Amino acid sequence: MSLSEKRQLEVCYTPKLYSLFHQENCITVVVDVLRATSAICTAFDNGVEKIIPVASVDEAREYLNKGYIVGAERGGEIVEGFEFGNSPFSYMKEQVEGKTLVLSTTNGTRAIEASKGSDIIAMGSFLNLNALSKWITEQDKHVVVFCAGYRGRFNMEDTLFAGALAAELMKTDLYESECDSTIAAKHLYALAKDDLYGFLENTSHRNRLQRLDLEKDVRYCLELNEANVVPVMVDDALKNMI
Amino acid sequence: MSLSEKRQLEVCYTPKLYSLFHQENCITVVVDVLRATSAICTAFDNGVEKIIPVASVDEAREYLNKGYIVGAERGGEIVEGFEFGNSPFSYMKEQVEGKTLVLSTTNGTRAIEASKGSDIIAMGSFLNLNALSKWITEQDKHVVVFCAGYRGRFNMEDTLFAGALAAELMKTDLYESECDSTIAAKHLYALAKDDLYGFLENTSHRNRLQRLDLEKDVRYCLELNEANVVPVMVDDALKNMI
Repeated sequence: MSLSEKRQLEVCYTPKLYSLFHQENCITVVVDVLRATSAICTAFDNGVEKIIPVASVDEAREYLNKGYIVGAERGGEIVEGFEFGNSPFSYMKEQVEGKTLVLSTTNGTRAIEASKGSDIIAMGSFLNLNALSKWITEQDKHVVVFCAGYRGRFNMEDTLFAGALAAELMKTDLYESECDSTIAAKHLYALAKDDLYGFLENTSHRNRLQRLDLEKDVRYCLELNEANVVPVMVDDALKNMI
Repeated sequence: MSLSEKRQLEVCYTPKLYSLFHQENCITVVVDVLRATSAICTAFDNGVEKIIPVASVDEAREYLNKGYIVGAERGGEIVEGFEFGNSPFSYMKEQVEGKTLVLSTTNGTRAIEASKGSDIIAMGSFLNLNALSKWITEQDKHVVVFCAGYRGRFNMEDTLFAGALAAELMKTDLYESECDSTIAAKHLYALAKDDLYGFLENTSHRNRLQRLDLEKDVRYCLELNEANVVPVMVDDALKNMI
């Protein structure tokens, strides 16, 4: 179905607000920059065949018992009994190429679960910014950028990505936004873009990851366009659309 | 009870997120800049004795039938059958001095209702920024700035006020914030403060008020420190604390 009106672009800051947003004729872009959607993009860039996101650790464990490669993270750490969490560096070519990966993370996979009413569910991170924005403009859909947030709240890193994506999409003149969240995200990204790492220095989640000694992960997750991939939900698994 | 730890300062962008925030030992500052909390501050500045906020139009009508001065607004307009809405210019000295006012507004009075678990509920607007921040520092409490938002969503004008109040309070060194919402609000206010009116030019709510021909109200609501008042809920009514 093609849209008769101009495409709407909206930014949703947390899962608790998602029900207020467009879901018909819509691409929902799930964003969990630190680190779920960055890990997903990295895995596809390294040739993973598909990724099955699961909401609960129990489900993840079932897949583990069946012999799958499974990542499970809660509170920034690998869940006991699993080999991988949500670090992008866990999903290198030798681990994932040609394989199916199962993934359960604190905020990211829950946001995927919450967005199941949407026509298309795509994954966004700084790593696939250009690939994703190009692919989105080729679809005749409204867009909701769905930030996974942190424990239900607004977080800065996902908002900055939302601002980056909004700025890219709005270069095309295909989109309009009457949504203050989009305007705020664009302003924040404009402030931060020359030094994302520095800008995030004092924010909550990054401090928490610092305590967990994840500096290398954070720096990598803030790099732009390292992964030429567009992970999209097809039935119950993510596949790369390009 | 006095706080043993440093006072926490948090910003809540919409009523839908309020349950995630501090409520014990806490001042909740309800913010609905366009226009409920600005109208409330104006009424107190013009000598209103107390204001009874009510959530429903039916309740407002009951008070009207009892002979009270009643304001009722929905969707930016005065509800049929009422003389006043939420325009600050309705609450001049000759109307309100020494009297009790009853008020029901779309977002503002609902936010007051939602924050009833908090120790202290105060009203914030640009009009009483300095008076409010000075009064807050004199209370030994955490602070949640509770933006009324717009139809459950984030809005820019309330967020800018939250940033302004956060910037004031954090000058004192009494407060700390690990909350990304606070950091974002401060950044946005820093960008906007030299021209609040211009900054809000393209945001959703302001456009809507423009369509309703409320330009004069908007300009007034963005003025700083016109009202030396601190409206606080005492039992079921707002009273001026200074």
